[in-house]
Amino acid sequence: MLFLIKKMYGEIILSKLVTSLLRKCGVPASDAVIVADVLIAAELRGIPSHGLLRLYDYIEMLRKGRIKPDANPKLIHESPSTVTLDGNNGLGPVVAHYAMKLAIQKAETAGTGWVAVQNSNHFGIAGYYAMQALAHNMIGICMTNANPLVAPTFSSAGLMGTNPLAVAIPAASELPVVADFATAAIARGKVDLLHKNGLPIDAGFLQDTQGNSSTDPGILTRGGSILPLGGSRKFGSHKGYCMAAAIDIFSAILSGANFGPFVPPSVSWLPLKDNLPGKGTGHFFGAMRIDAFRPADDFLESMDLWIRTFKNAPPAAGQERVLIPGDPEREAEQRHRKTGIPIQDKVKEQIRSLCNDLEVPYSLDSGTG
Amino acid sequence: MLFLIKKMYGEIILSKLVTSLLRKCGVPASDAVIVADVLIAAELRGIPSHGLLRLYDYIEMLRKGRIKPDANPKLIHESPSTVTLDGNNGLGPVVAHYAMKLAIQKAETAGTGWVAVQNSNHFGIAGYYAMQALAHNMIGICMTNANPLVAPTFSSAGLMGTNPLAVAIPAASELPVVADFATAAIARGKVDLLHKNGLPIDAGFLQDTQGNSSTDPGILTRGGSILPLGGSRKFGSHKGYCMAAAIDIFSAILSGANFGPFVPPSVSWLPLKDNLPGKGTGHFFGAMRIDAFRPADDFLESMDLWIRTFKNAPPAAGQERVLIPGDPEREAEQRHRKTGIPIQDKVKEQIRSLCNDLEVPYSLDSGTG
Repeated sequence: MLFLIKKMYGEIILSKLVTSLLRKCGVPASDAVIVADVLIAAELRGIPSHGLLRLYDYIEMLRKGRIKPDANPKLIHESPSTVTLDGNNGLGPVVAHYAMKLAIQKAETAGTGWVAVQNSNHFGIAGYYAMQALAHNMIGICMTNANPLVAPTFSSAGLMGTNPLAVAIPAASELPVVADFATAAIARGKVDLLHKNGLPIDAGFLQDTQGNSSTDPGILTRGGSILPLGGSRKFGSHKGYCMAAAIDIFSAILSGANFGPFVPPSVSWLPLKDNLPGKGTGHFFGAMRIDAFRPADDFLESMDLWIRTFKNAPPAAGQERVLIPGDPEREAEQRHRKTGIPIQDKVKEQIRSLCNDLEVPYSLDSGTG
Repeated sequence: MLFLIKKMYGEIILSKLVTSLLRKCGVPASDAVIVADVLIAAELRGIPSHGLLRLYDYIEMLRKGRIKPDANPKLIHESPSTVTLDGNNGLGPVVAHYAMKLAIQKAETAGTGWVAVQNSNHFGIAGYYAMQALAHNMIGICMTNANPLVAPTFSSAGLMGTNPLAVAIPAASELPVVADFATAAIARGKVDLLHKNGLPIDAGFLQDTQGNSSTDPGILTRGGSILPLGGSRKFGSHKGYCMAAAIDIFSAILSGANFGPFVPPSVSWLPLKDNLPGKGTGHFFGAMRIDAFRPADDFLESMDLWIRTFKNAPPAAGQERVLIPGDPEREAEQRHRKTGIPIQDKVKEQIRSLCNDLEVPYSLDSGTG
């Protein structure tokens, strides 16, 4: 582990480094800054699986021509409250950031704004884009499909992505509610970590190629699949399946992107498939002006009351307190801003190798706290 | 069990009976027909917990003056794509049916329509209203909060309702995708049935007043609570909590209804609380015109492909086939239209007693198949 600089330096050094690497691949400066901000936000918020770990594949896919470095997203359909956007195979974070801006613009005039995106790529953490709405006194919504890995209830095949959903809701003096979660029973990253450490995984998360429950985290590398949120039918996996299905349809069928098993891989070492039914990866964004429903101050005060009610809920035996959606990520961010961002050795080596290849000075070690 | 008439008669006899009972309580004929349709749809679709079982409480609450029989919902706020509706304490199905009509109207002009509702009551199955959008080539969305029974992750207190979400999505030649599910780990009705039969319940669904896991289905009658979808933190209950929270906020904070622990009871034997922070129960509805995003035919054909892909997914070991969201309810409906609707003795007795009280001829026995 490398503990990056304490205080505010770490973020700046990281941002400059990521931006320099992306610019060397032909990404315009303003777009490179967005990608760096999204990846570093994931690190700060304690979701390293969607942070700098992704930079290597983003850059490999740029260098292989699988992602366009200077793509301009193009509006292909609209109504007063909707837009459909062709991401033109650009970097996911750039396309998503722009799509959410459009949703916010539509909401300014129509009360709500909804943007379906085709032909995009892996975009990092969904919560980042949902939170773009907060400064506008809007509720932000963001979802995406993802490469297939999760099996529908009663199926042995991983046909769906972990299809995350994020919702960000502003409050008055309390901190906003930010829910950001995958609709699978467990994150791939956690499974891989157990596998790497030779540890078994509890039943209820994974299955083998026949659809039998498996406690071997290595099963995913041998055709196994992750179960939907709920795990088994008995514990409600059909609800996780329903959510993942709705997110897939909103992201891909409204936009004309690829759905379910056809979503392109988000890693550079997996080949692209031919004859896909749609274009790239799909996302869906929403923005709702709170004053399109109620005077903004009334809404914000009610949200404060909501948050305090749940924060002050009696804890269960053995628990210290009850959390509000967004608390764990906020607390991770506070911690990381004090102690620095921990970076895994593997990621550090990836970045060093990218710096070598692209002739960018490697500046991470100088940041060790 | 009473098996109601085979063929189409059953539905007509039931509808006439329910409508007559409601009219005796001052409900206008056109509204009574809607309530009957919603309750019978729940029976047909295999969700009797939200069917005729609810009629007794609906009528008791009308007779006690807790629900207004002839309320007219009133628009209190709007933007091009949004409406906030005061249900004026009317019957939930009447308010919800009207709210969804408004969402559809807004979508006609704005591309999408979103309606937040305050001051409403228990509305039956969420899927009914989401499906109103299908005939308009729109995606329908419906959610509601409900009386508190479900504990947030890490809390011992049942502060949230089972807060269901329904999404209905049209297709071309395939049947529509209709997801309709509660965000709790298990339905109250299933717990009560085990309790009645003296059977234990598996761990992972319920907890006692201290927040300790419980296998006693009677715990709910002694201050216990249901866990969110996922069950425990390890198996993702924080995701179920996030969903229930978002549904509560959309339903109550956008509209000005009561949230979380303040949602009024949906049964007549529980007293109303004083000093509530909002008005009645809250709902939230959405309608999205598919051609606001893409030419309608393209969307519908893609949906057919989506549905066939998932229907034809390889089944897991021991499973016959993979289902599409909406299949179980559709199959229940087909079965019930052939063999009749099974009505529990308890419900039959409730209806007989209502018929006595309200001087309506009791016609169910004549329908026995």
